[in-house]
Amino acid sequence: MSIIKTKSYQVFIDESTEILVDKLRSLQASAYFVLVDENTKEHCLPILNSVLSEFDLKSIEIESGEENKTISTCQYIWEELSKQGADRKSVLLNLGGGVIGDMGGFAASCFMRGIRFVHIPTTLLSQVDASVGSKLGIDFNGIKNLVGVFNDPEFVFIHSPFLKTLPSQQIRSGFAETIKHALISDSDLWHDIQTFDTIENHKDWSGNIERSVSIKNEIVNQDPYESGLRKILNFGHTIGHAIESSCLNSRDPLLHGEAIALGMLVESYISLKANMLDAESFEQIDQFLRSKYSNLFQKTYRVQDILDYLSFDKKKVGKNVLFALIDQIGHCQFDLMVNNEQIEDAIQNTLKTSHD
Amino acid sequence: MSIIKTKSYQVFIDESTEILVDKLRSLQASAYFVLVDENTKEHCLPILNSVLSEFDLKSIEIESGEENKTISTCQYIWEELSKQGADRKSVLLNLGGGVIGDMGGFAASCFMRGIRFVHIPTTLLSQVDASVGSKLGIDFNGIKNLVGVFNDPEFVFIHSPFLKTLPSQQIRSGFAETIKHALISDSDLWHDIQTFDTIENHKDWSGNIERSVSIKNEIVNQDPYESGLRKILNFGHTIGHAIESSCLNSRDPLLHGEAIALGMLVESYISLKANMLDAESFEQIDQFLRSKYSNLFQKTYRVQDILDYLSFDKKKVGKNVLFALIDQIGHCQFDLMVNNEQIEDAIQNTLKTSHD
Repeated sequence: MSIIKTKSYQVFIDESTEILVDKLRSLQASAYFVLVDENTKEHCLPILNSVLSEFDLKSIEIESGEENKTISTCQYIWEELSKQGADRKSVLLNLGGGVIGDMGGFAASCFMRGIRFVHIPTTLLSQVDASVGSKLGIDFNGIKNLVGVFNDPEFVFIHSPFLKTLPSQQIRSGFAETIKHALISDSDLWHDIQTFDTIENHKDWSGNIERSVSIKNEIVNQDPYESGLRKILNFGHTIGHAIESSCLNSRDPLLHGEAIALGMLVESYISLKANMLDAESFEQIDQFLRSKYSNLFQKTYRVQDILDYLSFDKKKVGKNVLFALIDQIGHCQFDLMVNNEQIEDAIQNTLKTSHD
Repeated sequence: MSIIKTKSYQVFIDESTEILVDKLRSLQASAYFVLVDENTKEHCLPILNSVLSEFDLKSIEIESGEENKTISTCQYIWEELSKQGADRKSVLLNLGGGVIGDMGGFAASCFMRGIRFVHIPTTLLSQVDASVGSKLGIDFNGIKNLVGVFNDPEFVFIHSPFLKTLPSQQIRSGFAETIKHALISDSDLWHDIQTFDTIENHKDWSGNIERSVSIKNEIVNQDPYESGLRKILNFGHTIGHAIESSCLNSRDPLLHGEAIALGMLVESYISLKANMLDAESFEQIDQFLRSKYSNLFQKTYRVQDILDYLSFDKKKVGKNVLFALIDQIGHCQFDLMVNNEQIEDAIQNTLKTSHD
């Protein structure tokens, strides 16, 4: 239905599968590999195989889940590429969510100093967020995305029917990035999403994906390596990543978008207390996030763990972690210094916490 | 004594250490890390520390040797960077030979999606070869440089007095790359090096380094990502890497340049038999390499192992390995297909071989 051009590649949103075939043909690869997990192998790969039979796809399967976005899974991908005869002219299709895209893109970028790759994101989160922006990588030593590179796919092919195969928790997680895009740069979008009854029951995601991809693309185009403006995309992520890391090895880990939903509320509270954000806007955000993610606000979070993980944040310069914070709905500032007391206060006043 | 400009950075050859201090200051890093092995820690780091005291260098030590150019050593570097508080504004100085440069550059390029790095090559091989060209990486599953990226250092600082600390085997290894530069593109340089009595006793390397760096730089500038001309730098390396891999886990592994010296003779023989290279030129090459590297020609090599490793070569397209071969002394062609029989014949007729 639409094609969005980034600086160096195209994002196809709900275009015909013939376009996918044409684009893959034009790559003239010596072999086409596809990276899947047990879920996309079951639900998405059969669809892909039926459309792409001429390419004789060779598959590499890894286990799903952020806890597998590790260097050892990456090593497995390199071993399989090597074993299955990949060469410099091979192409890797990343069929899955953010983990598959981030890790598959990183593995491809480093295999033989870089083979080409294509993203075919299958979750709402990866369709609205991870498909644009060139950030690739893995978690390392428990720190999110500590190891990675910036690199671009040949193209991105978004097929919203894949979303029908997703559990509702995954849809809620992906929607958090759309909320973020609204809060940092599009008050009209914020207005629109207020009309969503429940996220789970929303049917047509095509327009939503297109809007989110466009917003992110505009920001990334202006600042591809995150030296300035792009940092506003980190809104909700500084606290969110720390919460996500702190829950990574718990019995009940959070999905990325769920952690970001919590992070956005904590960071909005920091804005409120710093007199950057008015009380009415904060109330709106607070109410909206608590209604859409009520289950997350019933859980308990460990303050000290979150603060510990913050000290490893990549956005640190010297000893200070820099935040992107909204000053109104639809506008965001970046490189703001926030001290530990402000952070702890905000967590205590927004989440259920424990100190054990 | 001279400064060579590559497309994106400068190579300082035997300039004053004040230049090093100035350049490092201008990076305005949040912290300066230095990667060493047990040899450069002992022989080179004290010199560096005395000149760079103001930067309060934090060191990371790894074990020397190609057998340690692995993903697990890389993981150790990432752990240490993380533990010692590296952030996005940190800089890594790679103080050592090719292993330190390749792996340190790769580790830096992937840490937090890329921190800056500087090469301070301390072996003749890395000074004449690895310091220019942007190829970074590690060996993986026994295959040389299977995992890596293309990326540039901030600058390269070559200090030839470091060579005085090297064993003669290291000097001979490095000299092989100078021989290669002569054979592929500079018959005058070939003429000059004929006058070297023994490599070990040669004293002033400054001019030699400068000429080699210039030759390589000119080639790389014309073709940074190895889509064409740059492939001539692989002369001697296709067979050489396979020989190196086949000896990697033996009791007596070859140094990189030693394997390349052998590879150049085997590949010259392929040229000879393909009627590309005249017999007189081949004789010159044969005599020169056998006299300078006589010990290597007394060893026995396993033909089948070498052929097996060739099948993993990155320069493969489909099933064919592509070679760069000289057609005269000082000129090289690339993308030449050579079949297994030609390769086996050439190995049999140049090296002592075994079939067990």
